[in-house]
Amino acid sequence: MTAIRPEQKHVEITGGDTLPFDYLMVATGATPRLPGVSGEDLEGIFFLRNVTDAIRIKNFIHQRMARRAVVVGAGFIALEVCEAFRRLGLETTVIYRQDLPMRRLGEDFAEIILAELETNGVTFMAHTNLEGFEAGPSGQIIVNTSNGALEADVVLIGIGVIPEVSLASEAGLNLGPTGAIAVNQNLQTNIPFVYAAGDCCECFHRVSRKPAYAPLGDIANKQGRIAGANIGGQNISFPGIVGSICFKVFDLEVASTGLTEEEAREVGLKATSATIQGVSKGHSFPGSGELHLRLVADTENGRLLGAQAVGSDGVVSRINVLATGLTAGLSLEEMAYLDLAYAPPFSGAWDPIHIAAQKLIK
Amino acid sequence: MTAIRPEQKHVEITGGDTLPFDYLMVATGATPRLPGVSGEDLEGIFFLRNVTDAIRIKNFIHQRMARRAVVVGAGFIALEVCEAFRRLGLETTVIYRQDLPMRRLGEDFAEIILAELETNGVTFMAHTNLEGFEAGPSGQIIVNTSNGALEADVVLIGIGVIPEVSLASEAGLNLGPTGAIAVNQNLQTNIPFVYAAGDCCECFHRVSRKPAYAPLGDIANKQGRIAGANIGGQNISFPGIVGSICFKVFDLEVASTGLTEEEAREVGLKATSATIQGVSKGHSFPGSGELHLRLVADTENGRLLGAQAVGSDGVVSRINVLATGLTAGLSLEEMAYLDLAYAPPFSGAWDPIHIAAQKLIK
Repeated sequence: MTAIRPEQKHVEITGGDTLPFDYLMVATGATPRLPGVSGEDLEGIFFLRNVTDAIRIKNFIHQRMARRAVVVGAGFIALEVCEAFRRLGLETTVIYRQDLPMRRLGEDFAEIILAELETNGVTFMAHTNLEGFEAGPSGQIIVNTSNGALEADVVLIGIGVIPEVSLASEAGLNLGPTGAIAVNQNLQTNIPFVYAAGDCCECFHRVSRKPAYAPLGDIANKQGRIAGANIGGQNISFPGIVGSICFKVFDLEVASTGLTEEEAREVGLKATSATIQGVSKGHSFPGSGELHLRLVADTENGRLLGAQAVGSDGVVSRINVLATGLTAGLSLEEMAYLDLAYAPPFSGAWDPIHIAAQKLIK
Repeated sequence: MTAIRPEQKHVEITGGDTLPFDYLMVATGATPRLPGVSGEDLEGIFFLRNVTDAIRIKNFIHQRMARRAVVVGAGFIALEVCEAFRRLGLETTVIYRQDLPMRRLGEDFAEIILAELETNGVTFMAHTNLEGFEAGPSGQIIVNTSNGALEADVVLIGIGVIPEVSLASEAGLNLGPTGAIAVNQNLQTNIPFVYAAGDCCECFHRVSRKPAYAPLGDIANKQGRIAGANIGGQNISFPGIVGSICFKVFDLEVASTGLTEEEAREVGLKATSATIQGVSKGHSFPGSGELHLRLVADTENGRLLGAQAVGSDGVVSRINVLATGLTAGLSLEEMAYLDLAYAPPFSGAWDPIHIAAQKLIK
């Protein structure tokens, strides 16, 4: 596709032909954010967007017998790749401009994530800016940073994605405040017969009550299904997201829903939080691990605003319960006495959710 | 305690002394249901209510070098004990009057539980009534049943519990329709300065809108805390339960919340259900297992009424999300597009919850 012509109800495709439409779905996705430094297109420097990328990276590592990896960024794609690189036996160094990985989750939780990286042999270079890449004399990549030069056989850049909106924008589709395509709850753009779904468009954040950019596979699936149903004559609306994410890095589970305390303040809410260290299963049950959980609430009405958690297991299940509570607008009092299924292989009689909610009520 | 005298505001204790009170908390718990057959007090026949019982049973097995166990009943205590007995190397036979274990969850799910028992070497005797016990000539226990006699070295009776209400009843505290002590949402009995909590009292079921008897550790904890807070001058109400339970039997997780389709009909609701077989993690993710999930909804308003699940992992976490949705009164439409945290180690982009809710909407 080379252009969208809403007024003619057709798209132009490579070679100059046109394809007519009654309804158009824009699903142009996202592209990796580029660091914008010299040498970033050298062989051996990769981005990870799909399975094909993953296979290419793995093949490159095997063919070149790579030993040293540098990962640029410390979001969840970057951290998942660290695990993959270590499993392949690579020396792995992360360079990141901030002090800690996944800084958004708070210093205490970010320290736990850092410790998990270091326990598993990843070197984390904090406060380090990428300055550029050079081809080394024996096929290696020289990674120049604000803290000196590193040598790598393979580099992964994981500093986020940007919505692919060039065709949409040229065609007169409105972009929202996040820079992605603006859609209503039916996934319609400002041109009613043009829909958008997935990583190219925004969604409504039910907690901040603002448009958000959340380029995640599960949300893209939901938007695609709803847009398709609406194009097909149904009338289904996408109620939006609460901002649930999770990932696993080595033996640590990390998950989050809603807003952090800082994010809540940024959107003008009066927020407070409580953090507990609990256990994932019944006390004294074999295999029970540490679980750190933070709840964020609105000081004005006691409404839950968000939750963040890290731990060895049971993290995602707690965040999903809290995401459901957030969606429904449950109060902290409801969360504090929620009837969760209890048996020692799965939790204590008081779940970490109950304990954290009770702590925050006080 | 030998008697409660509300009018004198004291209790009588063993030996004839009295203890005065301003407020009284009745927490007399529950006692195992007896089968009411001859020989049920023979040595080697056990009930399981607490850790002391568990240690006594284990010691008995070791001291007598027990080889053969009979378990009477097929609820979750009985099934958990089957696992413990098999781990100790005992030949284990369950006798049960119905056709399948945990019949309440539906024939299909009960068959899966039966298969798990049989895979792990448990013999399940269906349609079998206990008729009595006799002491055998060489120290064994003869278990007489409607399907013949069995020999056992140790017997576990797990056919439920009954609330211990004799003192409460004699003192004039009202019992509810379940036979347990009736309490209001503040855990007060009909005598306002007498509270009750735990396995001796009822609780309010938020889905059936009726009193329920749910003698479970987590609910007892919640009731105790709330009763204590109210006696201490606070005013906290217990909103009730949604009927969440879970247990693990060998490698199978089983969990349930709210009502089954049959239970919904019994309380006069028009119910329908959808059952799916999904996977616990992302498709093709290592270790992903089968997960069977049934959702029950009210045909009149689309409201979720309950959910049941069995599978190798991820069962309890789904039921807890659904329990939260039930508590909040979320609709099937909300559940079908719920923003759950997604990453392949934890689920597919469409969680079994989404898939089941979408199937039930159709």
